Amino acid sequence: MKGLYFVTDRGLCGKTPLADVVLQAIRGGAACVQLREKDLHTRFFVEEAQRIKAMMAPFNVPLIINDRTDVALAAGADGVHLGQEDMPYGTARRLMGPGAIIGLSVETWEDVERAQELDCDYLGVSPIFATPTKLDTKAPWGLEGLAKIRAFSRHSLVGIGGLHAGNAEAVVMAGADSIAVVSAICASPDPFRTARELNQIIRLSLAKRGKTDFI
Amino acid sequence: MKGLYFVTDRGLCGKTPLADVVLQAIRGGAACVQLREKDLHTRFFVEEAQRIKAMMAPFNVPLIINDRTDVALAAGADGVHLGQEDMPYGTARRLMGPGAIIGLSVETWEDVERAQELDCDYLGVSPIFATPTKLDTKAPWGLEGLAKIRAFSRHSLVGIGGLHAGNAEAVVMAGADSIAVVSAICASPDPFRTARELNQIIRLSLAKRGKTDFI
Repeated sequence: MKGLYFVTDRGLCGKTPLADVVLQAIRGGAACVQLREKDLHTRFFVEEAQRIKAMMAPFNVPLIINDRTDVALAAGADGVHLGQEDMPYGTARRLMGPGAIIGLSVETWEDVERAQELDCDYLGVSPIFATPTKLDTKAPWGLEGLAKIRAFSRHSLVGIGGLHAGNAEAVVMAGADSIAVVSAICASPDPFRTARELNQIIRLSLAKRGKTDFI
Repeated sequence: MKGLYFVTDRGLCGKTPLADVVLQAIRGGAACVQLREKDLHTRFFVEEAQRIKAMMAPFNVPLIINDRTDVALAAGADGVHLGQEDMPYGTARRLMGPGAIIGLSVETWEDVERAQELDCDYLGVSPIFATPTKLDTKAPWGLEGLAKIRAFSRHSLVGIGGLHAGNAEAVVMAGADSIAVVSAICASPDPFRTARELNQIIRLSLAKRGKTDFI
């Protein structure tokens, strides 16, 4: 997992349909899309995931479903993202199969240590900074916490929480392989331009860190 | 699906652990248990389902999960029950496999007609009577509505909504093969006795209707 990682929030999209924002984010360079729905009935979540998966078919960008393995399986999504209160990693891996992308949020150092034993595809380091988008998070990791995880972990790291064009470079330089944003794109008046700008910052920062395989 | 069908409601169980109420219902003669959780995080729902499935192992009683195919698959449950806002039947069948028990709530006549084409295992006729347990239901079917569905449908019928020892016989006589109860057992001071009493009424009523294969 490397680059710009877009996490949806229907409530922040205003009048723009969620699928349009996803499309703009992908055209702007998003390398991954995570569909996150906490209030939709299963039927509507499945229908939305199927619609967005079909729309994403021409692009080489994986669709990840937050929490819901059933929705991921129903829509043929590429993976799931698991919080610490979601399905245990091993169970999700069994249901999703060895080829699925499975990411895991880490909110405490114990989470980071436990994840070291797991063959998950990335860690979501959450939150990097305090954020109004998600209110049930633990204390922010900050850049120092992220750097500490980078030094320890064998996994790809996705930073999330309070990230935008103004701090993306610092977060990549501290060790993130990928920058996840929610409101920066969802609430942007021009999600395409915002995604493109973020994508450029992330690519340049990864290059500075010597991650030239990405360019 | 025939006999007493117990649907859980954690909130109505008071201080008695849910697993204890399930065990008492099964000892009292429940032929099926449906685990219904609308507020639990996935992790805790999975853990609870796994615990209850393990506890039910000695009994020949299926465990059905309400709505969540992921939880059912994770816990090795025997099936899922789908409302009209849950996963579409065909998708759930694909994920659960041909051997799973899949029930479908019908709340309108259109639901009943659509279900006729599906190889689901039973219809949950919901609600038979008005009930405070579930507030988002449509107009009650009543005994006449149930009888009309019985005359039309090829499926096994589970009546649900406002059912208890005082009306179970009438509901079976109107066409239900199974009586689902929530509060009658959850809120009972003696779930075992309540289940036993209900089970006896249902068996005798099914026998009256000539369903002697059940005795």
